[in-house]
Amino acid sequence: MFIKNTWYVACTPEDIDGKPLGRKICGLPMVFYRGADGQPVALEDFCPHRGAPLSLGFCKDGNLVCGYHGLEMGCEGKTIAMPGQRVGGFPPIAKYEAVEHAGFIWVWPGDAPADRSALPQLAWADNPQWAYGGGLYHIAADYRLMIDNLMDLTHETYVHSTSIGQPEIDETPCKTRVDGDTVYTERFMSGIKAPPFWQMAMRAAGLDDQASVDRWQVCRFSPPSHILIEVGVALEGHGGINAPDDKKAYSVVVDFITPETETSMWYHWGMARKFKPEDAALTASIREGQGKIFSEDLEMLERQQQNLLRYPERKLLMLNIDGGGVQSRKVIDRYLAAETAAS
Amino acid sequence: MFIKNTWYVACTPEDIDGKPLGRKICGLPMVFYRGADGQPVALEDFCPHRGAPLSLGFCKDGNLVCGYHGLEMGCEGKTIAMPGQRVGGFPPIAKYEAVEHAGFIWVWPGDAPADRSALPQLAWADNPQWAYGGGLYHIAADYRLMIDNLMDLTHETYVHSTSIGQPEIDETPCKTRVDGDTVYTERFMSGIKAPPFWQMAMRAAGLDDQASVDRWQVCRFSPPSHILIEVGVALEGHGGINAPDDKKAYSVVVDFITPETETSMWYHWGMARKFKPEDAALTASIREGQGKIFSEDLEMLERQQQNLLRYPERKLLMLNIDGGGVQSRKVIDRYLAAETAAS
Amino acid sequence: MFIKNTWYVACTPEDIDGKPLGRKICGLPMVFYRGADGQPVALEDFCPHRGAPLSLGFCKDGNLVCGYHGLEMGCEGKTIAMPGQRVGGFPPIAKYEAVEHAGFIWVWPGDAPADRSALPQLAWADNPQWAYGGGLYHIAADYRLMIDNLMDLTHETYVHSTSIGQPEIDETPCKTRVDGDTVYTERFMSGIKAPPFWQMAMRAAGLDDQASVDRWQVCRFSPPSHILIEVGVALEGHGGINAPDDKKAYSVVVDFITPETETSMWYHWGMARKFKPEDAALTASIREGQGKIFSEDLEMLERQQQNLLRYPERKLLMLNIDGGGVQSRKVIDRYLAAETAAS
Repeated sequence: MFIKNTWYVACTPEDIDGKPLGRKICGLPMVFYRGADGQPVALEDFCPHRGAPLSLGFCKDGNLVCGYHGLEMGCEGKTIAMPGQRVGGFPPIAKYEAVEHAGFIWVWPGDAPADRSALPQLAWADNPQWAYGGGLYHIAADYRLMIDNLMDLTHETYVHSTSIGQPEIDETPCKTRVDGDTVYTERFMSGIKAPPFWQMAMRAAGLDDQASVDRWQVCRFSPPSHILIEVGVALEGHGGINAPDDKKAYSVVVDFITPETETSMWYHWGMARKFKPEDAALTASIREGQGKIFSEDLEMLERQQQNLLRYPERKLLMLNIDGGGVQSRKVIDRYLAAETAAS
Repeated sequence: MFIKNTWYVACTPEDIDGKPLGRKICGLPMVFYRGADGQPVALEDFCPHRGAPLSLGFCKDGNLVCGYHGLEMGCEGKTIAMPGQRVGGFPPIAKYEAVEHAGFIWVWPGDAPADRSALPQLAWADNPQWAYGGGLYHIAADYRLMIDNLMDLTHETYVHSTSIGQPEIDETPCKTRVDGDTVYTERFMSGIKAPPFWQMAMRAAGLDDQASVDRWQVCRFSPPSHILIEVGVALEGHGGINAPDDKKAYSVVVDFITPETETSMWYHWGMARKFKPEDAALTASIREGQGKIFSEDLEMLERQQQNLLRYPERKLLMLNIDGGGVQSRKVIDRYLAAETAAS
Repeated sequence: MFIKNTWYVACTPEDIDGKPLGRKICGLPMVFYRGADGQPVALEDFCPHRGAPLSLGFCKDGNLVCGYHGLEMGCEGKTIAMPGQRVGGFPPIAKYEAVEHAGFIWVWPGDAPADRSALPQLAWADNPQWAYGGGLYHIAADYRLMIDNLMDLTHETYVHSTSIGQPEIDETPCKTRVDGDTVYTERFMSGIKAPPFWQMAMRAAGLDDQASVDRWQVCRFSPPSHILIEVGVALEGHGGINAPDDKKAYSVVVDFITPETETSMWYHWGMARKFKPEDAALTASIREGQGKIFSEDLEMLERQQQNLLRYPERKLLMLNIDGGGVQSRKVIDRYLAAETAAS
């Protein structure tokens, strides 16, 4: 069961550059492409003629042509034409609201009218002061396991011990607070040495990478499954997260988690940074490093999923470090209950 | 559910050259080999001793020796010998009628007496005026999806756009007619340019590959699932399919479709041609080209199958271009009903 | 259903050298590692915090640290510590008795008190007069199919025809006898030529590899699923298995078969020999040869398993050559019945 009347990241603009993309989201096979006006379109990935996936076809004049027998599908899910056929009586296929926004293609899988004002506002998008790089992982695990993972960065000490993990994370309690539908988990460390990833960032930002620093992690969950994490280090004693820009290196870890099935997800990850935005080589280097770090979570989540499937009756612990995930799941459950009640 | 009392292509003679072959047909695990008289034999692929597949064994003096403990199986499905054992009481295994005919090994999976007179007569087999080349694909889709595919060549325009497809196929209506248990779907095109594959054939036949041609496609289904397609091009205005041999390039596309399970098939495809039959290099070149073209259908059929499994309740459209498949399925259903009634 | 209150081989000491090993045994996910005292420990492979597999973690001061959030698990299955947490109320996980013995790590999956006196005594372990080499295969088949396989060496003639098989095996009847819970299947051959593997062994033992020999195979099953096979050749007429050491080449084939699931197993195989024990190159060479020979059984067993799953209603034959497997399964069934009655 998924929240349906909400925005999920479906793919990137590049994914539908000149050709359709098939992707299952919230259990629904969808095809994404650009219509005649250049705007993204999302339809059911099912040709009403013989059931072929439309995503194996191609785009022609802003419509989607089935790659099997040439049925031409319109952007509203109604067949427009087919060689030698009258198509008036063809059954329509489902259409989903899709929109390009802040560097991604978003989709609204539900039946309720799509609310564009509910799209998340991302300060770093379309802003030349910021640079962004990221990637996509397919993970065979319940998307909520990734929410748990990201709303508790304690795991960095263990899973990512050679890059961003450090013992001080464990030693510093985190605090979880809820503000409406938004959940925050915060941790502030003072007077520590930066771990390898942040030493690299300090060098890139022109700071002494051996200096003592204050470090912060502010994880913010908003429904259905978006997590933005403000992370950074500042030279010790300059105000931490509030230090002036020339005394710190900081960025936003971007996590858009989209359920595919009950036990698999599409995970768009990335990092937006406000230092040296013009440095493309740095963007590539950070992207590569982050991709490697985030890949370290994959096996853990997939194996955890297998263990949970084997022992469905076991209740997991909910410690204070799990507070972020627990509170985020409560928000999800509230939305699910509201959708169930409304239907 | 499959028609059982009928002939299917099981394999080629080369497949049982000196060693047994295990292959599941109509859901039945079978082993094929040559008996002492050189004739093909088909048995259940199950050793009555401990259940090992007999196809992992070897042939000895025309009998099949189990590769596990040496049980010697006779061509009637009765154990003949086993080292140190009396075998009189061993339970028999199923025997299926098998016959070599027209370049293939055929099998009759049903219980009713096999009718050799029902084997399809193939004009091009054992005839030095013809050459034949072909291959085998295993496809994870209901075998009837391949019948639909072949009884409507409209898909050539889309799936095979760079070889045999051309817009005129779409623009020319096809006609389906039924003659007893045989279904025909025909399309005749006039005054067109030959597509790449046929330009190659015209050159091979000594014709100008840029000349205007008449083109034909005559698909013929006969039960259980054999499709022969007469295809060709003739220099325009010389009578098309009836033009004299020196004015045309033509051949028979051979499609023997054998169900493996409800959602998978063995697909023997090939081409028989009446021009330059002695040219082995041409045979190899056509075979390679055809193999490539036919492989383009595989992903489409397998993905279509997955979509159909996901939406079992959806009724597919039956357009006039689908008439060949629709009528062929009616023949199959009639045979199935007759077998059910008889059992 | 498996015998639980008994010893199975879990892994080798090398497998837990400095890092934990996850392995499913009798359907139970287990993690193996060495505790502070250097003794092997076996626990449920399930972190009580969030269900991550503990085997993805690491060892620290003899305790197991979860690789996700750093929970520290004690050797009794009780959580010892976790950064920033009180762990007194954490639910325990299952602990299994494990012991290092005779070159392997053994595990007792059941609830009844583990009985160390029931560990098999292996003459060749920790004895400088013997050398041992072996390996591990994972096989997708019921572990009892391997017992059948090993308690009837008739299959050597067919499966291993180029190494240890020879026609005289078939021609010489085997005898099965039962002594309490131990099952013996014996075959003695006289005045034959040694097959390739034993010719190699004769050369290694300084004997004429073309000489006429007496050959023996004495298979011994003991519960739950351990099979030791005394095998060898002696120069003809010197007493066979009882010939003096300088007239024979002999060894013990070691087979420890551990069920993973109902249709898969871990198979530790090896050979212990009493000639040239100091010759490490010979050990490696025999190990390689045996590994190759034993790999020949894999496909047969896995395909046999598939056939048996397809025809669950068919009764397999029980010939005299199958007596060893039949009697061994009776012992297993007796143990299973006793465990069921006791629970």
